Amino acid sequence: MPDQDSRLSIVLPAWQWLRHYSPLKFRADMLSALIVIAMLVPQGMAYAILAGLPPITGLYASILPMIIYAFIGGSPTLSIGPVAIISMMVFATLSPLYEPGSPVYIEAACLLALLVGGISFLLGVFRFGFLIQLISHPVIKSFIIASALLIALSQVKFVLDVPLEANNIPQFLLSLWEYFQFTNVYTLIFGIASILFLIYVPKLFCLQFIKKIFSNTAFIAKALPLALVGISIAMVYFLNLQSYGIKTVDEIPSGFPPFSMPFWNTEMVLQLLPGAAMIAMISFVESLSIAQATALQKRSDLNSNQELIALGLANIGAGVTASFPVTGSLSRTVVNADSGAKTPMAGVFSSLLIIVVSLYFTGFFQQLPLAVLAATIMVSIWKLVDFKPFIETWRYSRADGIAMWVTFFGVICIDISTGLIIGIISTFILLLWRISRPHIAVIGLIDGTQYFRNVNRHQVQTSHEVLSMRIDENLTFLNANTLKGFLISEVSQNKELKHVVINCSSISSIDFSALEMLEDLNTELSRLDIQLHFSEIKGPVMDKLEHSHLLKNLSGKVYFSHFQAVQQLAQDLQLN
Amino acid sequence: MPDQDSRLSIVLPAWQWLRHYSPLKFRADMLSALIVIAMLVPQGMAYAILAGLPPITGLYASILPMIIYAFIGGSPTLSIGPVAIISMMVFATLSPLYEPGSPVYIEAACLLALLVGGISFLLGVFRFGFLIQLISHPVIKSFIIASALLIALSQVKFVLDVPLEANNIPQFLLSLWEYFQFTNVYTLIFGIASILFLIYVPKLFCLQFIKKIFSNTAFIAKALPLALVGISIAMVYFLNLQSYGIKTVDEIPSGFPPFSMPFWNTEMVLQLLPGAAMIAMISFVESLSIAQATALQKRSDLNSNQELIALGLANIGAGVTASFPVTGSLSRTVVNADSGAKTPMAGVFSSLLIIVVSLYFTGFFQQLPLAVLAATIMVSIWKLVDFKPFIETWRYSRADGIAMWVTFFGVICIDISTGLIIGIISTFILLLWRISRPHIAVIGLIDGTQYFRNVNRHQVQTSHEVLSMRIDENLTFLNANTLKGFLISEVSQNKELKHVVINCSSISSIDFSALEMLEDLNTELSRLDIQLHFSEIKGPVMDKLEHSHLLKNLSGKVYFSHFQAVQQLAQDLQLN
Repeated sequence: MPDQDSRLSIVLPAWQWLRHYSPLKFRADMLSALIVIAMLVPQGMAYAILAGLPPITGLYASILPMIIYAFIGGSPTLSIGPVAIISMMVFATLSPLYEPGSPVYIEAACLLALLVGGISFLLGVFRFGFLIQLISHPVIKSFIIASALLIALSQVKFVLDVPLEANNIPQFLLSLWEYFQFTNVYTLIFGIASILFLIYVPKLFCLQFIKKIFSNTAFIAKALPLALVGISIAMVYFLNLQSYGIKTVDEIPSGFPPFSMPFWNTEMVLQLLPGAAMIAMISFVESLSIAQATALQKRSDLNSNQELIALGLANIGAGVTASFPVTGSLSRTVVNADSGAKTPMAGVFSSLLIIVVSLYFTGFFQQLPLAVLAATIMVSIWKLVDFKPFIETWRYSRADGIAMWVTFFGVICIDISTGLIIGIISTFILLLWRISRPHIAVIGLIDGTQYFRNVNRHQVQTSHEVLSMRIDENLTFLNANTLKGFLISEVSQNKELKHVVINCSSISSIDFSALEMLEDLNTELSRLDIQLHFSEIKGPVMDKLEHSHLLKNLSGKVYFSHFQAVQQLAQDLQLN
Repeated sequence: MPDQDSRLSIVLPAWQWLRHYSPLKFRADMLSALIVIAMLVPQGMAYAILAGLPPITGLYASILPMIIYAFIGGSPTLSIGPVAIISMMVFATLSPLYEPGSPVYIEAACLLALLVGGISFLLGVFRFGFLIQLISHPVIKSFIIASALLIALSQVKFVLDVPLEANNIPQFLLSLWEYFQFTNVYTLIFGIASILFLIYVPKLFCLQFIKKIFSNTAFIAKALPLALVGISIAMVYFLNLQSYGIKTVDEIPSGFPPFSMPFWNTEMVLQLLPGAAMIAMISFVESLSIAQATALQKRSDLNSNQELIALGLANIGAGVTASFPVTGSLSRTVVNADSGAKTPMAGVFSSLLIIVVSLYFTGFFQQLPLAVLAATIMVSIWKLVDFKPFIETWRYSRADGIAMWVTFFGVICIDISTGLIIGIISTFILLLWRISRPHIAVIGLIDGTQYFRNVNRHQVQTSHEVLSMRIDENLTFLNANTLKGFLISEVSQNKELKHVVINCSSISSIDFSALEMLEDLNTELSRLDIQLHFSEIKGPVMDKLEHSHLLKNLSGKVYFSHFQAVQQLAQDLQLN
């Protein structure tokens, strides 16, 4: 019964792949899950620390959310879990309110996940998925670059073992100046060694003779952070490095993640709401762009509202299992897809494997130096710090370039969330600015053709008595007055003017302010014995204008083509 | 020396008419000034009371500002001075902070005028005149209608002689309920009689036999409020009406307006700044639209930044002569123009006449009942309360209609300034909303032509292998994702698709977010062996795209016309 199938698929998208599941797919999914958790374990713990939380919460954050997304989400390979930028946003939201790592801080992180989940879920249910578009690409990019820079700097404190603040760069530099003298040299050596390991060992795997020995170097490169974790744990354990003051991860409780509602009250909710909204927005932007790319490749449709709902429920899942906000991770999704995951079951398997790790292997990680985790974050995040996009964007569009720099300095000089808001607002202002200064051109006929072009760019025919002009923007209140001012100026310069023809080929909508401006213009021009004409009005615009006063009282005519208008008017003028 | 002339004209626009001044023009200007002050004296006093200020300040507000505008402003007939809406905004700004009529309130009103002037002046100097366009016509209209309603209601307290609040309608109704019982019947009768006089006496002048007796009935109708003022003063004086509890205008000091800087401190300036910004905006909108209409009729150009500077200096003039913010008055400008004013000198003469009034005639007005002034305000302002624009706007555009109602309810339910801000913000949101939901159509060829039209509206030819589409909006971050989602959906529905051709005839700009979206789309579609093509890209758009990755890596081609694209692709497909 295909009918029942399709109904089931709407409620549970997973039904589409569950009913075709096979042992072959099982093997592929399981292999992929093993590879992904080699990345996920160190990343999860590191991102938890980045968020100011105990490392175990990073493992918890990779369990229930991933299972939920697997069954509801639209992308088969999207890997949901802790992500550096979201963790940094969590820290930026919570650290001004509570002491990082304290019980109330941990509860607040869960509450934040619940709120992020609730916001995403409701936006999805009420089909507000389009809101994602409020953030432009340059702002997102700049936000990610600036955040990556801040994240890398925030890890310096673990490498130096001194308390540094890193909500913004001035703060970081001040505290570095103050505390640099208290650096623990052993920690520093360990940290720098880890960084060098993570940077240079992967380069070894590019060498030909090593490539010959190992068959799957790409996978090994991905597992290097896990190898480093293992090596450093062994070193701490056998060399008793803790006695040199090298700090390690605290005791990690083993077991299933606790399943409970976080503590909350109205005041907390109100305090966390703005941060939650920003996190929901960024996590959706990140997740959707990854999901869209994979959806297009599978030629499957993707409903952005369904994605919001899935992401929302995943975050609610994070909130009730003692973890923090999650989203789709680009790096793990790519590895998941490349290593052959066939269905979302790969995600489910990696969740199950993480449960095994949290049940039996947490004891290991107690000897893990914090400087090593910091090094993994710094190396992985530093790749994002890249200034080429700034140059590229600036070259293509000044407005987008400005928005990028505004966002960048907002993030690094104030803080991550404020910077983002400033960036978003700046794009709106720049958009309104652009709309308010439309390109208006006086046009003339190119000899021997029916084409009209800008008089300033082309050799064209014009007439003193007929002014032909084109405006390259939809007419709104933002530019109605610009058009009027342009015409006032033209009329004042040319005393012989008898006809104004506005070419509407670029106009897809005329709002009421612009309509009234045109009506006024028509009235005022006709008092001066100047007729107003329009040409090439589009269908949908004409539909709306048909019943307006403008066309009823128009002193001139509406022409199908601009050529026809100018020809007709020239004939009329000759006859008179 | 024309060169020196034109240089002088830039600094002092007045030079253009001053050097051609003649006795004939003098007579015309003087006559017009006499007619205008017949309106100005009662209006000035009434609007001063509306602003919560002593009536004399309304006369002061008509002196220096008018002289300043005459010499700097661009419109020869614009009459600058107190205006009802601006006075209401002054009251809305100041009354929550200070006791209306108190010395500090009066000082604050002068300071407000200085701030309004300073803001306008600076915006003009830095060429920010385009900012005026931030307010759409429907919002302005709705703001004026709602404010007129509130202004009319705010005068009820003088007619009933009870203390009523009228910052918004709920407040008004509550205080009316509370105080209605304390109404002074004599005042009420006087007020109602005045209202009836002002409504019905003008109608008498429309009767034929009266028209025969008086030659200039239009002028007499304009002078009726002044006549009413005279009659009521006489009645109060001879019938000793003050003993019946009819309140009159307080003692009015005679003399020149005092010339001094108002008292100010930083805290006051910061408190008044937002209100000053709103007043500056509205006064500029009002003034510019009047000035533009007159400029067009005289076929003279109008520089909106010069207007801002003139209006700014006029308000600074108001601030240092013990008055309050001013702007161009539509009613007085119309009378000024109709009664034959030839040059801005008419404004100068009316200022001089007002000085004569403030020097020698203020004693008269001490017997003027407040109820009469209230009646003149109510009758003149009530004409503005008209709901036709709401219906008209709603019919043409839902978005503009919504913005109108939002503004209206904002003004009448909260207060005049907050309502305006809410209205302005709502237009931005609605504009962004519209941009984010562009009209996207799959198009097909109309048989036997070269025209492509929407497949849903017309009988057209399409192909399974070539998807033709058109988007009727500039591509920005707000709609890039909508276009991508549309294509993902089309690709998922049609497995035979080989070519996508995007018709760009409606696209006048592509921002960086949209460019990246198109680049991603190109990459992702080419992995599916679908080629992306563009047709009818406009010159300015092409200029920017030329050096982009998009065109370098485009899987398909750019075609001059859509017809050419589709024809070429159909041939290619047949060959394969």
